[in-house]
Amino acid sequence: MSQQAGTDRLVELRRELHRRPETAWTEFWTTARIVEELERIGVDEVHVGRDALAPDERMGVPDDEEIAAAFERAREAGAPADLLAEMEGGYTGAVAVLEKGEGPTVALRVDIDGLPRRESDDEDHVPAGEGFRSVHEGAMHACGHDGHATIGIGVLERIEDSDFEGTLKVCFQPAEEVIGGGKAVAESGHLDDVDYLLALHLGLSHPTGEVVAGIDGFLSVSHVEVEFHGEGGHAGARPNEGRNAVQALATAVENLYGIARHEEGATRVNAGKIEGGTASNIIPEYARMEAEVRGASTELKDYTKGRAETVVESAAAMHDCEATFETGPEAPGGHSDDGIRELVSAAAAETDGVDSIVESDELGGSEDATYMMETVQSQGGLAAYVGIGTDHPGGHHSATFDVDERSLDIGVDVIAGAIERIGRDPPPLGED
Amino acid sequence: MSQQAGTDRLVELRRELHRRPETAWTEFWTTARIVEELERIGVDEVHVGRDALAPDERMGVPDDEEIAAAFERAREAGAPADLLAEMEGGYTGAVAVLEKGEGPTVALRVDIDGLPRRESDDEDHVPAGEGFRSVHEGAMHACGHDGHATIGIGVLERIEDSDFEGTLKVCFQPAEEVIGGGKAVAESGHLDDVDYLLALHLGLSHPTGEVVAGIDGFLSVSHVEVEFHGEGGHAGARPNEGRNAVQALATAVENLYGIARHEEGATRVNAGKIEGGTASNIIPEYARMEAEVRGASTELKDYTKGRAETVVESAAAMHDCEATFETGPEAPGGHSDDGIRELVSAAAAETDGVDSIVESDELGGSEDATYMMETVQSQGGLAAYVGIGTDHPGGHHSATFDVDERSLDIGVDVIAGAIERIGRDPPPLGED
Amino acid sequence: MSQQAGTDRLVELRRELHRRPETAWTEFWTTARIVEELERIGVDEVHVGRDALAPDERMGVPDDEEIAAAFERAREAGAPADLLAEMEGGYTGAVAVLEKGEGPTVALRVDIDGLPRRESDDEDHVPAGEGFRSVHEGAMHACGHDGHATIGIGVLERIEDSDFEGTLKVCFQPAEEVIGGGKAVAESGHLDDVDYLLALHLGLSHPTGEVVAGIDGFLSVSHVEVEFHGEGGHAGARPNEGRNAVQALATAVENLYGIARHEEGATRVNAGKIEGGTASNIIPEYARMEAEVRGASTELKDYTKGRAETVVESAAAMHDCEATFETGPEAPGGHSDDGIRELVSAAAAETDGVDSIVESDELGGSEDATYMMETVQSQGGLAAYVGIGTDHPGGHHSATFDVDERSLDIGVDVIAGAIERIGRDPPPLGED
Amino acid sequence: MSQQAGTDRLVELRRELHRRPETAWTEFWTTARIVEELERIGVDEVHVGRDALAPDERMGVPDDEEIAAAFERAREAGAPADLLAEMEGGYTGAVAVLEKGEGPTVALRVDIDGLPRRESDDEDHVPAGEGFRSVHEGAMHACGHDGHATIGIGVLERIEDSDFEGTLKVCFQPAEEVIGGGKAVAESGHLDDVDYLLALHLGLSHPTGEVVAGIDGFLSVSHVEVEFHGEGGHAGARPNEGRNAVQALATAVENLYGIARHEEGATRVNAGKIEGGTASNIIPEYARMEAEVRGASTELKDYTKGRAETVVESAAAMHDCEATFETGPEAPGGHSDDGIRELVSAAAAETDGVDSIVESDELGGSEDATYMMETVQSQGGLAAYVGIGTDHPGGHHSATFDVDERSLDIGVDVIAGAIERIGRDPPPLGED
Repeated sequence: MSQQAGTDRLVELRRELHRRPETAWTEFWTTARIVEELERIGVDEVHVGRDALAPDERMGVPDDEEIAAAFERAREAGAPADLLAEMEGGYTGAVAVLEKGEGPTVALRVDIDGLPRRESDDEDHVPAGEGFRSVHEGAMHACGHDGHATIGIGVLERIEDSDFEGTLKVCFQPAEEVIGGGKAVAESGHLDDVDYLLALHLGLSHPTGEVVAGIDGFLSVSHVEVEFHGEGGHAGARPNEGRNAVQALATAVENLYGIARHEEGATRVNAGKIEGGTASNIIPEYARMEAEVRGASTELKDYTKGRAETVVESAAAMHDCEATFETGPEAPGGHSDDGIRELVSAAAAETDGVDSIVESDELGGSEDATYMMETVQSQGGLAAYVGIGTDHPGGHHSATFDVDERSLDIGVDVIAGAIERIGRDPPPLGED
Repeated sequence: MSQQAGTDRLVELRRELHRRPETAWTEFWTTARIVEELERIGVDEVHVGRDALAPDERMGVPDDEEIAAAFERAREAGAPADLLAEMEGGYTGAVAVLEKGEGPTVALRVDIDGLPRRESDDEDHVPAGEGFRSVHEGAMHACGHDGHATIGIGVLERIEDSDFEGTLKVCFQPAEEVIGGGKAVAESGHLDDVDYLLALHLGLSHPTGEVVAGIDGFLSVSHVEVEFHGEGGHAGARPNEGRNAVQALATAVENLYGIARHEEGATRVNAGKIEGGTASNIIPEYARMEAEVRGASTELKDYTKGRAETVVESAAAMHDCEATFETGPEAPGGHSDDGIRELVSAAAAETDGVDSIVESDELGGSEDATYMMETVQSQGGLAAYVGIGTDHPGGHHSATFDVDERSLDIGVDVIAGAIERIGRDPPPLGED
Repeated sequence: MSQQAGTDRLVELRRELHRRPETAWTEFWTTARIVEELERIGVDEVHVGRDALAPDERMGVPDDEEIAAAFERAREAGAPADLLAEMEGGYTGAVAVLEKGEGPTVALRVDIDGLPRRESDDEDHVPAGEGFRSVHEGAMHACGHDGHATIGIGVLERIEDSDFEGTLKVCFQPAEEVIGGGKAVAESGHLDDVDYLLALHLGLSHPTGEVVAGIDGFLSVSHVEVEFHGEGGHAGARPNEGRNAVQALATAVENLYGIARHEEGATRVNAGKIEGGTASNIIPEYARMEAEVRGASTELKDYTKGRAETVVESAAAMHDCEATFETGPEAPGGHSDDGIRELVSAAAAETDGVDSIVESDELGGSEDATYMMETVQSQGGLAAYVGIGTDHPGGHHSATFDVDERSLDIGVDVIAGAIERIGRDPPPLGED
Repeated sequence: MSQQAGTDRLVELRRELHRRPETAWTEFWTTARIVEELERIGVDEVHVGRDALAPDERMGVPDDEEIAAAFERAREAGAPADLLAEMEGGYTGAVAVLEKGEGPTVALRVDIDGLPRRESDDEDHVPAGEGFRSVHEGAMHACGHDGHATIGIGVLERIEDSDFEGTLKVCFQPAEEVIGGGKAVAESGHLDDVDYLLALHLGLSHPTGEVVAGIDGFLSVSHVEVEFHGEGGHAGARPNEGRNAVQALATAVENLYGIARHEEGATRVNAGKIEGGTASNIIPEYARMEAEVRGASTELKDYTKGRAETVVESAAAMHDCEATFETGPEAPGGHSDDGIRELVSAAAAETDGVDSIVESDELGGSEDATYMMETVQSQGGLAAYVGIGTDHPGGHHSATFDVDERSLDIGVDVIAGAIERIGRDPPPLGED
């Protein structure tokens, strides 16, 4: 049956994507593989790379060397040269447009990047046991974006075959994990005529069969990059002559996590990546940290960021070092609109395999889909961020994260069903 | 004149070595270049690599990948294949033997490795201004070992031409900066018949023209490698589910530097290199540190190491992490013998360019020459560690360290002069 | 007019109480002054001290010396000897019972203790400018309990004069600030027949004229007392021989504030009071800390407490000290019932001076009134915690906190109005 | 026999002094008891309190309340009113002058104050077991000054009975433990005509029977008092509104102990006494610390003090607090002169019970005797600081410190013997 066939092809695609995770702005092979599917489906327009983005709005772009290495790796893995050319320099991702006559313009946003972490090689971890574990050591699809991209393809296929009237755009967005791509897509122009926006995420601790019709509670986030510059020297012979950048960093880390909680809601701090110094016998003259701050609102995030900057500067001063504190990718908070939430809920109610529908839930994390939601909502459109439950053995971002592949079909059914409902009976738009 | 010619050749050799600094156990090109000189001089025996060392006693050996990369780099730079073959796997260094008839056996130890730090590219930094700055980005001769190796060659030339009667062995020792090579040379067998040992160091804050006849006050040292293992997770959505290895490391660093001073003498701690975590939005599940502890005696070093281990284990426990604490390269303390110190002093007094002789000084740092001194002294021989002053603009291990090349000839004169005096009138040996 | 006369007397009483703040379990004079009012009003029963409490359930009791000093101070200030005798040993507080015929039993809980902090002597601070600043240096009514007790008296007067039918009990509870008295009143037996419980608080950032009909969001709390025991010694001559309890405490404080936030809701940590060591030249062998942990639920509080205990024990181990970690006063979370909230709202709507009614608000702090609410609710009764807005120049617990005395009458009107409504038309009770 | 009688009386006196330890500038009873002995002996002059000191040069003076309480306690313990009057306000100590004809002027300095620490009540602790444990709870002679004062009396008796020709001044100096009295005695004028100065200390890890003829290696020291001023607030409801002085202090303590060691010699830091905050539920708005820094030289001490000030100011800035950093009592380093060391050594060689003479030793601690040594040495005189060994079960400043009372007679014999030798054959003086 076609349903089963669809399933098989989606599972196969997801596993292919899973094997080749590419981190933010290096999704060369992934984009090329998606475009291959888009051409198979025969969508009306495909915009790739610079054409899919506002090129100057990329955030969290890695250094040239890392981009070049991934580019070469994608070439060796068989990505077509002409497609690669459109992405050279780290302009990844694609926007597909399906024109199905007069009707509302609906956009679906799916993200496609992997995470810079090693995947478990335990045989109990299904991708390891079944042979589709990451072949890119140190990178992993540990947040389900392989499934998101797959669902995006599945929805295009389904709508292509349906009697939906209107326009569907699917944005395959790069660099979500660094909150780096949402703004570039939001400001690309592709959303300017969009009335309704759907985004989706697998898992989020909801089991297979559960659907969240519209997620709220996105945390506002800023990524920050901190550097400490001190002075080296011989740690044994001249302990007093150095200015110890690692000691400054340690003092900062201790106190960053100790930033006072806020009465008005959740805040977060994480010193997620550190490095410093060169050898055990040299006083470390340099150290750096990639950190993030979050808040239940932009105000709470900014409170935390302000305190973090004070902590960093004081820690540097304490150890006679200089510090820089640079803000990287940021994202606002966000919310789902009831008008569209109801249609998702109705679609889920008629989807095989769905046994629980949650109207709303708090994300508790951050997402740069909020840039796109904000763009659509600010021009009078409606948006919803949909949760598609999936049993996941390890937590998001952990080495044993995996998705239950039954949720791929569920995701396609729920999202496509909601789009069809929008086409049939568009919910009233707001004021521009 | 030959003196000037000698000088020119020594300066040229030193600059060649300076351009290609190789860190511990990767001194492939350096060793090959030294052997080329030894063959030019025509010494009686040359022992290279495994033959120069007790192969199982190497400490601080880097990983295979780093060794292989340096090996390949040396090959590309023209190091002869047969010589490289003798060093494959990171068995570097050489021992040269010059037999000049009946008489005492004297050894000279010079170290040859560079440091893993970037060299200044400021035009005021002479190697940068005059075109012999390191071509190995991230590595630098920042402690004068290029000069030490050069003086070793100069001394062999001088003694070859002199009426010294006896045997001279010059040990070109690798991996001093990680305290990793001294033990392997000390236990190689080459020192078993040595009666007198000289070692030397340029600089140490003594200006050009000053000589320290015998240095004492070597700090005992242990390098330690610490790992923290926690658990990752999404820093925004599940802040409580991770076990934060970077927070554990920061707590450890803060408290390592706070280990109580000791009434009996100097102690040192340095957390010289750290890294941890993978991305700003993932709770860091892993962090590591390369540190060192020192003491004016082995007891004081062990006091500090014991306290450090408690700090590390408690910091891990505090953040629900596990820690490992592994001891790497170590070295004992050491002292110079008066019998040989006097001859160095006498040689210095007759050396052109020497205007100040210091009988003794405290090093304040550590050195794995102490293994070799201990070996010779324990078999009844005498040892001295000689300081050859040199004006150095930046401190040892700093990006602007450099030597005054006038000190190369002074070093050769003082050391060769002392060896000749030993040959003429060997100071009385101690008990075996 | 009687209204104005009432006002004057309430203001006068509040100022009298304000001048003599007594901290937890030392409210001797305060209780005596309240009893004087109760006798003037002519209530039916007055239970004082041990008779008002479950004596064994007091928490946060200060040491004997502090209690004895306050007892003596109250005696000198004129508290009657017979009343004091009933409170000897720190059994303070009172329960007044007014019997007005057949009808529901309603309880009102007001707290009466002050805080251990110095009051501002700035002339702009009204109590200082108008001469009723605390005469107990280092103690202050900085949270409005002087006003609460006064409103309790006002309500009794009002209900005494009204046509309310039923029984009114007013619990003048000691030791709220240390979360120490609520449980002792809750388990005293006086609440066993209570159907409806009201509690109130002035201020909480609501301005004069605003009333919160029922507050929710009480944080669960545990107070903890931590001791570090190390070993002293001469800090100059024998720095290595001590075991530094202050260094252990500092490590603990840094890391307590750094306990990871929790995905499920608010948590709090505060190291509110510390002391340690004896002199600058002695390695400190002892240090202690009074801290608290909170959570939006008891589970979140217990998560934080568990992490705090690990931090304390690890910090002690790190510095070779021993630690004790003892839990002191605790309180559960809590919520207001809608049935009673509506009556409060209705009463507020008819109260002069009320211009804003908020149905519900989150407290964000902790309260041991939750013990009493839990007792009444668990036996099928209803409870509400009412906020009476008051302009307060400084924040709660700050040196310049003060209440707008116009809110005293408003408080009496709203609470008495709600009680009268309960008497007229008791809201349906829940299941026991 | 008189020797034994002397011993008995000295032991009795030492135990009397031990029972009533008085901390810096509160040695009212102690001074009075010493003056009683001086009058019994019949010395020629006794200068008490303001007459023994440069009154404006006292350092480390406690607050008026503490002085007044100790004053009253001394009065109640029987100190004569006229003597007390001379010391009112905390001007304690005495200088005794014995004139014995033509000859050199020799001064002996003994210190008389106790420490602010609790004494052990273990029966194994001799003062506890034998009934002369401190009756001043929280104060203790834990550094042997009770013995020093006793030896001062014993020396006066011995010299009074001897054929010494010259003048002997014994300075019973207050407030050594806070480095607070040495400067005031040094600048009192009493030393202006002194040619030779002896000071002594019991113990210092030397056993009974060992004498150190002249101690060197005094650490320079500065006491510092640090305050942190933040802002209070309710820790549960408004965690973000306070500015946490305890968190600032903890950060400072962690980093003070982490100040880098110095290549040139020993440094010390100690955060000996801390306190802060008022209650567990209030964000602490105030914290303070009494600390000290030391160095093997004044330069090393000043290096450490400079770093400490930076740490304190940065820790305050990090937590939005203000800090003050005030320098209290200070003392220079110092050394003993060989000319007088030899006479001490000779005297020790003829003293019963002395079985080991150490020519020189490093103190490793600080002492304000260095002010007096500096004064005498700067006017051409000679000074020596003599160590009188004594078995002490607990370390100096610990709760179980005690002296072996046999060392009292040894101390008298060695010091008196040295003074007699000075009288017979004065060592040559230096230049003024």
